[in-house]
Amino acid sequence: MTVTDTETTRKSRREGGGRRGGGTGRAPVPQLARRKLTRLFPAMEIVSKDELESIHLASLKVLSEIGMDFTLPQARDMLRQAGAKVEGERVRFDPAMIEELISSAPSEFTFHARNPENNQRIGGNAITFGTVASPPNSADMDGGRRTGNYQDYRNFLKLAQYFNCIGFLSGYPVEPIDVHASIRHLEALRDAVLLTDKPFHAYSLGEERIRDGIEIARIGRGISHEQLEKEPSLFTIINTNSPLKLDTPMLNGILEMSSRNQIVCVTPFTLAGAMAPVTVAGALVEQNAEALAGIAFTQLVRKGAPVIYGGFTSNVDMKSGAPAFGTPEYMKATVVGGQLARRYNVPFRTSNTCAANTVDAQAAYESVFSLWGLTMGGGNLIMHGAGWLEGGLVASFEKFILDCDLIQMVSEFMQPLETTEDALGVEAIREVGPGGHFFGAQHTLARYTNAFYSPIVSDWRNNQQWLAAGKPEAWQKANAVWKQALADYQEPAIDDAIRDELNAFVDRRKAEGGAPTDF
Amino acid sequence: MTVTDTETTRKSRREGGGRRGGGTGRAPVPQLARRKLTRLFPAMEIVSKDELESIHLASLKVLSEIGMDFTLPQARDMLRQAGAKVEGERVRFDPAMIEELISSAPSEFTFHARNPENNQRIGGNAITFGTVASPPNSADMDGGRRTGNYQDYRNFLKLAQYFNCIGFLSGYPVEPIDVHASIRHLEALRDAVLLTDKPFHAYSLGEERIRDGIEIARIGRGISHEQLEKEPSLFTIINTNSPLKLDTPMLNGILEMSSRNQIVCVTPFTLAGAMAPVTVAGALVEQNAEALAGIAFTQLVRKGAPVIYGGFTSNVDMKSGAPAFGTPEYMKATVVGGQLARRYNVPFRTSNTCAANTVDAQAAYESVFSLWGLTMGGGNLIMHGAGWLEGGLVASFEKFILDCDLIQMVSEFMQPLETTEDALGVEAIREVGPGGHFFGAQHTLARYTNAFYSPIVSDWRNNQQWLAAGKPEAWQKANAVWKQALADYQEPAIDDAIRDELNAFVDRRKAEGGAPTDF
Repeated sequence: MTVTDTETTRKSRREGGGRRGGGTGRAPVPQLARRKLTRLFPAMEIVSKDELESIHLASLKVLSEIGMDFTLPQARDMLRQAGAKVEGERVRFDPAMIEELISSAPSEFTFHARNPENNQRIGGNAITFGTVASPPNSADMDGGRRTGNYQDYRNFLKLAQYFNCIGFLSGYPVEPIDVHASIRHLEALRDAVLLTDKPFHAYSLGEERIRDGIEIARIGRGISHEQLEKEPSLFTIINTNSPLKLDTPMLNGILEMSSRNQIVCVTPFTLAGAMAPVTVAGALVEQNAEALAGIAFTQLVRKGAPVIYGGFTSNVDMKSGAPAFGTPEYMKATVVGGQLARRYNVPFRTSNTCAANTVDAQAAYESVFSLWGLTMGGGNLIMHGAGWLEGGLVASFEKFILDCDLIQMVSEFMQPLETTEDALGVEAIREVGPGGHFFGAQHTLARYTNAFYSPIVSDWRNNQQWLAAGKPEAWQKANAVWKQALADYQEPAIDDAIRDELNAFVDRRKAEGGAPTDF
Repeated sequence: MTVTDTETTRKSRREGGGRRGGGTGRAPVPQLARRKLTRLFPAMEIVSKDELESIHLASLKVLSEIGMDFTLPQARDMLRQAGAKVEGERVRFDPAMIEELISSAPSEFTFHARNPENNQRIGGNAITFGTVASPPNSADMDGGRRTGNYQDYRNFLKLAQYFNCIGFLSGYPVEPIDVHASIRHLEALRDAVLLTDKPFHAYSLGEERIRDGIEIARIGRGISHEQLEKEPSLFTIINTNSPLKLDTPMLNGILEMSSRNQIVCVTPFTLAGAMAPVTVAGALVEQNAEALAGIAFTQLVRKGAPVIYGGFTSNVDMKSGAPAFGTPEYMKATVVGGQLARRYNVPFRTSNTCAANTVDAQAAYESVFSLWGLTMGGGNLIMHGAGWLEGGLVASFEKFILDCDLIQMVSEFMQPLETTEDALGVEAIREVGPGGHFFGAQHTLARYTNAFYSPIVSDWRNNQQWLAAGKPEAWQKANAVWKQALADYQEPAIDDAIRDELNAFVDRRKAEGGAPTDF
């Protein structure tokens, strides 16, 4: 069912109270209403239970015989007391200890936004798509490729707010490198609260930053510390230093976040052939070992703290060492990653990726192959949902729009097929009869406006019309759409007291010098 | 596992006896070996058994209460004698009659090629991809869009032969409009036999043409009429005139083909909102009614004759009436089409489609969404696998190459994941240890050449290299590849006696004037 300018959107626009359509009177960008997306079909499985168990057992063997380096002494002390074997930085885990610790991780939880309508259910059959996160560069077709900057950062936040299919901010959609690193997290997260009302992420780059992130999430929601501990309102990605290492900023991130019952997503970055074995199965063994160690540590910090199993296994081009994305290997790793996460009964995080240098056919097929793997494989929290280009080195404005269309199509595909008697249409078929057509049938007239998905980017004009329009390609439509969306964007409403408290906090922390930059 | 210039390919090249690499000494286009592709995971289901049954029952209701027009008197006589109610051209079927007739359709069979290595298993978990079929136009990025012609036709046949991922010819990859319609089938099918050794299709455009097609298939294989009747060696698409009509050329096609035990693929062309109800479920009811009527008629002609359930339900753009492809609705219709075909225990035909006007991001995402639906949905015979553009109005050389890459990626995704002890890589992880890398590991060195899929089109160079190369897009790589493939193409070997018999037959039939053009 296609709804342009939905009830929800209209409502939030009214609440926003800002300008409408940039005063141009244009039709808004057609988009689907905000929707809680649920997978109604069983997740795909490509390895048998026995094969899955062999991956599980191999990763437990890695953790018990080889072990992992934990660089933070406090973390090693905690693990030693819990029964791990510690020698220098190396920590070895008894399989039973891992199994016992991870058993307390919750299977599902709610990720709270300052606007409760944007709360995201994480786990089970729920699926939610976030923005791209962390590229050092941004690009659009007019301005070209450039170093990530504050203006682009803010513009991506506006797009994230504008498009209903975006459930959360996966991180900074582009790194605002022109904001000094000591205060970047303060400015960036203030904007995340003010320019959007969707839930967001803070980077684990030292304990000060993550503490500031938690405080900003709390202030943004206008809740007490106690309520924050009951309602996870911030998430952080914990990337292991693959192979087999968890460094101090990441361990501090887990300590700060899990102790406050905020969401930790443990994501090994295991490129097969580079930081992991050259086989998909071997890379998955390593991914699983590292993920289990990280998840176990969250539960040691606080039993029941919300945690997500992150998969980011892909392969490299063995000729150049360049990472490849959206490949058959990526799809397989994604599907088996989902099988592993479900084995441990924790939510699964995966990503919409591509390696293309521009918004061409390659960008599209690598992304849809990624979406195929993660949708069928039971992904729950989808990072880099919109805007990722060039293996994550670039946040692209046109790719953001293209991806919103792709996400919406996935979302439509996942809606149940209507099979009511009216939908089955026997009476319409009777009305039209052999040799007729349905354009004027009563059944058609009653349903045609919302019958089918109305795409953002796709150009369905015939060749003559398309030639007359100047042979536009998909990226050109996307280029026009992000400009319109930015022009039509309206800042979401916020309580004045919350805004004041947020500004006071950020300004005070900036005056204090922000956070150290020697992380 | 990636194999460039495989054993099979090398062998057929030697057998071909032609020039090698056009004398240039270039590396051949990297491609996978010929492979019998099998779906190892269960096909996806998006409607429940009850919902599927409601579609089934609604289509039986359509056939019993509304009925279908059969324009050929001979067909109506046969149906009347078998118990159908006939009034004028209208034929109404008792549900029990349909169920009884379709029950004799085989669930699987082999589609024979003149080179037995190119035999295709049809049905069950097997999946095979064919070329695009029937566009009236062709296009490439140098020559632009043009009316279909004989030279392009032959070039597409050469590409079909060159690429191992292409299992069969779905029809004429482009219509050779410059060959007179009376003899077009003779010239075109002679080329299908001589330029390829893969199995092929003949159009049901009058009884003479389909009889000629059967004879050419028999001669090409060098077998007797008796053996031909045991070994299906030709297929034909029977498109119903949706809604609810089977015309004389199509009915003659079934009579000729099924009586000789050749393959009939009944494919209603049910665009929701145009020739079918505006709901996906309604369009499926109509598709199913028409398919069941056609399948039933094949079994009335000859019990056990090989027949395929064809699905081609998509939606139209309700603003313009233009057909849309690769949409969420198309994906759903494809998946439910597979559920229906499996309910009747017959093979399922579907297609790799798109509506894009050029080989851009849209062409890629619509195609991969199509491939997603048909792969997960259990498609067996995949028409329009490579080369389809502009809703089937254009056969594109660049799209052909892009699609070969997409098909190969699907094929790789469908390969089982290796989970041997060596693949699990625990010893490699031990060798490298925390903080190391796997580039020089023994495990990597032993496997790296064939570890990952090596794409035809994807450009994985970094931005600097890509800029230096002139910012090529995917279609430009595809453009270079089809030219190289044509230059490197070698005609497959054929027995001199068979070639002579084929030429004699075609020349005689041409001298007789070919076939009438008033069909």
